[in-house]
Amino acid sequence: MEKQEQFEAFREKCVVNINGVITSPEQANISVFDRGFLYGDSIYEVTYSEDSCLIFFHDHLERLYNSAAILGMSIFLSRDNIISESIKTLKASKLTRAYIRIIITRGETEIGLDPSNSFKNNLIIIVKPQPIYPETQYEHGLKLLLSNVVRNNRMALDPNAKSGNYLNNVLAIKEAKNQGFDDAIMLNNNGKITEGTSFNIWAVKNNIVYTPPVSSGLLRGITREKTIDVANKNSITLDHSELDADFIFNADEVFITSSTKGIMPVSQISEHKFGSSISDWPMTKRLMDEYAKLIVSEKLSCEYKY
Amino acid sequence: MEKQEQFEAFREKCVVNINGVITSPEQANISVFDRGFLYGDSIYEVTYSEDSCLIFFHDHLERLYNSAAILGMSIFLSRDNIISESIKTLKASKLTRAYIRIIITRGETEIGLDPSNSFKNNLIIIVKPQPIYPETQYEHGLKLLLSNVVRNNRMALDPNAKSGNYLNNVLAIKEAKNQGFDDAIMLNNNGKITEGTSFNIWAVKNNIVYTPPVSSGLLRGITREKTIDVANKNSITLDHSELDADFIFNADEVFITSSTKGIMPVSQISEHKFGSSISDWPMTKRLMDEYAKLIVSEKLSCEYKY
Repeated sequence: MEKQEQFEAFREKCVVNINGVITSPEQANISVFDRGFLYGDSIYEVTYSEDSCLIFFHDHLERLYNSAAILGMSIFLSRDNIISESIKTLKASKLTRAYIRIIITRGETEIGLDPSNSFKNNLIIIVKPQPIYPETQYEHGLKLLLSNVVRNNRMALDPNAKSGNYLNNVLAIKEAKNQGFDDAIMLNNNGKITEGTSFNIWAVKNNIVYTPPVSSGLLRGITREKTIDVANKNSITLDHSELDADFIFNADEVFITSSTKGIMPVSQISEHKFGSSISDWPMTKRLMDEYAKLIVSEKLSCEYKY
Repeated sequence: MEKQEQFEAFREKCVVNINGVITSPEQANISVFDRGFLYGDSIYEVTYSEDSCLIFFHDHLERLYNSAAILGMSIFLSRDNIISESIKTLKASKLTRAYIRIIITRGETEIGLDPSNSFKNNLIIIVKPQPIYPETQYEHGLKLLLSNVVRNNRMALDPNAKSGNYLNNVLAIKEAKNQGFDDAIMLNNNGKITEGTSFNIWAVKNNIVYTPPVSSGLLRGITREKTIDVANKNSITLDHSELDADFIFNADEVFITSSTKGIMPVSQISEHKFGSSISDWPMTKRLMDEYAKLIVSEKLSCEYKY
């Protein structure tokens, strides 16, 4: 029962908003007829706040609408409504540093795949303390497995839609954890690098910084976009060619970007090693420092303060 | 609000069992922390009853466990428990002809893709009246679109696991409905026919009956298996070669199989037409008649009677 106690302790720290009502987390429920539950027919975003400032929230909202567009999902809610409910949930949490997950489903319909009878959305917002990731991961890096699970094909379900269909990623992280790795990266059908289970992947070779193009089949990460901006501003050369596994195995440095983790070095992919302490990742460190400055400036001119 | 009223009228006719408790359908809820809701991390089966006999339930249970195995999902419930809760829900419905959907999720865990902290399942059973499909569909056939949505890659998420990740299929049926078709069939990455959004696909050419192999990337349908048995028993020649779209466009007859619909003729795929009344589908009609006899014999020796 240890796992159950751990879950219950976690749940207690959450604040949940269901369709505008702040609900105790033990009673935060959704109908079994909700299409999000039956088919994973939902979209979501995750970001965090620091010093009561919601980081890059505008970008996350834009992407939420983009996910809806890719899936042809009608959004019956106004953007102002999504914003005010997000702020309300953050305030209710009394946290100044919080993780926030915003989920919008295609609501309840008669059982059946056809979404055309959707008449509402369900809006679920979950706020919890934003973990401070172990300093050791920023110092010594993550160990990733190149998974045997192939990333979803763009023509089947575009990874650029951030949806409630995450079994592909669950299978990849499961494979990685079973083999003692922290997480996994995946190839597409053509053997090209796409992304990690919940992050974008980057390589550095001869002072050029590489990250695969969206056309490889990946989510256009917000931190990926911000890191591109940072690199451009600092006259660092970027390359968005498709990458194969061999290229990344032979890189000088590898790192990941994620909205909740920021930039984090990678010490190992499968049996290939890249470094053991942060001085082994000079370009990564430079980008981490520049990205930290960007977060400071985001907070100074905070658009979504609560 | 017409769609909402339609949904509510539908919901009223359902009986829902959540973890062993029969719940009023308006209050049939699941935690927002359930992995089925967050990631589509669930498996399910659908079958139906006729004259209070659950049809081919043994085969559906076998497949449920097979889906769990493909996804590496622990089932903490006993098979007897799943059976008795299914029977209990059917009895509570007072229906002698019922649709039953059995959903098992990986339960609630701390938010995160890694499923290793799963400590329970949630078992949701939904029973509703089994529709009598319009006689006109059995007489005049279904109109299908060959979708531009490619079926999920087996190496990404095997369609042979019947899971809560159904956006791929939702996108395909949406495309079909938007163009005035009843439903859709999908190709794999190599341009080979796989299956429909919720049914297997078959073709007849020169008295040989074709249906693609599971290796094309499809769900091993129970009615597909039963139809193979029926064909073998009647010395009808079967072929399980991979099929391309051109082959099926030029077939003499096309039909589908599904657990809830049985065998149903297809009158059209995209712009290609196959017939307009059942006499245009002699082999399909023969299999329909033989399959109907199989259902009668299944009911006579019913294993799961309630």
